[in-house]
Amino acid sequence: MPDYDARIASLREAMAEQDVAVLFLPVSSTLEYFTGISWPIPNPTEHDRPGDWVSGMYLGLDAGPVIVEPQMGSAAMVAQVADKPGISDLHVLTELDDYGTVLAGYVQSMRGTGGGKLALAEHAWAKTTIAALCAAPDAEIINAHDLIWPLRMIKDDEEQALMRAAAQLVDEAYEPILAQLQLGMTTGDIARMVDDTLAEFGADWTSFHTGIYMGGKPDPGAASVFEATDRVLERGGSVAFDFGALLDGYCSDFGRTVFIGEPSDERRQVYELVMASQQAAIERMVDGQITAAQLDDVARSIIADAGYGEQFIHRLGHSIGKDVHEPPFLLEADQTVLRTGMCFTIEPSVVLDDGGFIRVEDVVMVGPDGGVNFNSTSHELRVLDL
Amino acid sequence: MPDYDARIASLREAMAEQDVAVLFLPVSSTLEYFTGISWPIPNPTEHDRPGDWVSGMYLGLDAGPVIVEPQMGSAAMVAQVADKPGISDLHVLTELDDYGTVLAGYVQSMRGTGGGKLALAEHAWAKTTIAALCAAPDAEIINAHDLIWPLRMIKDDEEQALMRAAAQLVDEAYEPILAQLQLGMTTGDIARMVDDTLAEFGADWTSFHTGIYMGGKPDPGAASVFEATDRVLERGGSVAFDFGALLDGYCSDFGRTVFIGEPSDERRQVYELVMASQQAAIERMVDGQITAAQLDDVARSIIADAGYGEQFIHRLGHSIGKDVHEPPFLLEADQTVLRTGMCFTIEPSVVLDDGGFIRVEDVVMVGPDGGVNFNSTSHELRVLDL
Repeated sequence: MPDYDARIASLREAMAEQDVAVLFLPVSSTLEYFTGISWPIPNPTEHDRPGDWVSGMYLGLDAGPVIVEPQMGSAAMVAQVADKPGISDLHVLTELDDYGTVLAGYVQSMRGTGGGKLALAEHAWAKTTIAALCAAPDAEIINAHDLIWPLRMIKDDEEQALMRAAAQLVDEAYEPILAQLQLGMTTGDIARMVDDTLAEFGADWTSFHTGIYMGGKPDPGAASVFEATDRVLERGGSVAFDFGALLDGYCSDFGRTVFIGEPSDERRQVYELVMASQQAAIERMVDGQITAAQLDDVARSIIADAGYGEQFIHRLGHSIGKDVHEPPFLLEADQTVLRTGMCFTIEPSVVLDDGGFIRVEDVVMVGPDGGVNFNSTSHELRVLDL
Repeated sequence: MPDYDARIASLREAMAEQDVAVLFLPVSSTLEYFTGISWPIPNPTEHDRPGDWVSGMYLGLDAGPVIVEPQMGSAAMVAQVADKPGISDLHVLTELDDYGTVLAGYVQSMRGTGGGKLALAEHAWAKTTIAALCAAPDAEIINAHDLIWPLRMIKDDEEQALMRAAAQLVDEAYEPILAQLQLGMTTGDIARMVDDTLAEFGADWTSFHTGIYMGGKPDPGAASVFEATDRVLERGGSVAFDFGALLDGYCSDFGRTVFIGEPSDERRQVYELVMASQQAAIERMVDGQITAAQLDDVARSIIADAGYGEQFIHRLGHSIGKDVHEPPFLLEADQTVLRTGMCFTIEPSVVLDDGGFIRVEDVVMVGPDGGVNFNSTSHELRVLDL
């Protein structure tokens, strides 16, 4: 069990340093990190409950944390808060409450007369942000990124174990997934098969929508290699997988490319190039020795030097933890210095002129002597004879 | 094809009336309503792309609409915008752009020197809202609810046809779903079977997470009737279904209760009571003749008069359209007058002392002579002999 009291104490320390008097976090992965209160998987369409826009955690320097929760569906929150002594109060809204008044009450009482800033999680809603402004019109209002992420981005031992378990799940599911491939399957068929297999292996959910990219015969009508969702698996093609599991509140994110029948010489060469690019990056993931931007450049230079730089069309990777995409990001604009305990996807790729897409992806932790790969699936080129 | 130009013109008219100079909408169901640009189904965990927080539509009274879109994954947006002449510009961000500067540029140039308000969709992010404030510190900033919902809440003929089609899909899937029930299935088994069946019948997605509530033998450890997810289907029990389909950008939301073996006399009586409550509400859904709060009271009074008022624990229903939960809401606090073309779920229920949960739900449109039920599944009490 994580030490939530210590996490809240660290959060308050950061608030005090940045002159923040009141912090609001909606129910989210960030709230789970600080309190253990789980977040719901988003519904496919908006599914607001009366009062959702003021629900979440209110934290003052010396007050709270108070959890505000709509009545509808509150039984689960009541049960969760019951075993969390660090929560000072649970306020269950009724459908008749004036929700703006509830929000203003906590903002004003926690802020007092000290004049400190208000901070909201960056994904809190505009409606909530505007109401907070109205409740304390003299307050500077900031997004809470710099309070939250210096803490969340370093995974402690317990989190590392959970990240390894989420990575191991996809490693274990991968061979059974390959064994179910059949000629004629569509990208949708394969994606559903992947999702079902992850569920069989114990995933609580996928960590993101499964991506299945089939190269081979480019579709002139497709806007990009990623668009051709009605392609079918055929000989001479390839499949690039991109999937991950959510397990016990932590994500994996995994990629491999397999060839259906012998690949061309160029595809073999590019496959080895992509693997070499990834390996070079992993070796450089040494605590304190490199920035996110520099790491991106290490991998990108290798692909560029071989003449495929324009065909590596996305960032090298992203941090990962409770969310599949977390800051920092491995791209030219991010100057974060990498530290032990940061976990990243390392996912170089090349889009070939013939429509093929070759990529690899593992979750790798920064360590004192270089990156520690949480995945164990082989990087050897794989030809399937279907 | 909806007349998106007319919808944007109506939006600008509302902006002018409310002295709003610039409106920002993130990629969302609301953006789809006004432009036809589809929104992505949310990922299970945060899946931000670089620049996501400034992406969406910027609309001035005489400028735009401009769509801003992150580079990563932009091919789909490029293809969508290509056939939308109403979009004045598509701005694809790079990973090196200063996103705050991009946002400020559109806010400032569209606002000019006229001093009008800024409006953001209520679900836009705090980070975006704060950046908009910084870009125009003298501007009043408001949430765009009152610009958007007077338009969205009245479904036109084309939308009504799409709502009927989404409702018909669940009607058609319901008998095949009942035919697949077997003793010993868990709530999770049944929910997955429902989702698979909706997909077979052509749903693009579920409109929300399928709910399966089994009454019968209350689980003393469960916090409520909704919590008992490890229950199994058994004789003497009941199943209350709550599911919906997303089809061509519109939602259905449907509920029925079936009994596994003969129900008790009380259950029979309560079943008829819930149906009578729904029917009374539907009859009162006359254009201009009743408010949301009054309609809630019509249904609630019938249940309360029979002695079960405390066991009808949620609002009578909610508006529904592109989103499963839209304003207005059928509850005591909502004074909206109902108008022809508004579509609502009508979903009274009773939680019984023995743990049973009896409910019904249909999508019903307000009409000149009373409600028009878009669902056609029978309300007769149904006993399954498994």
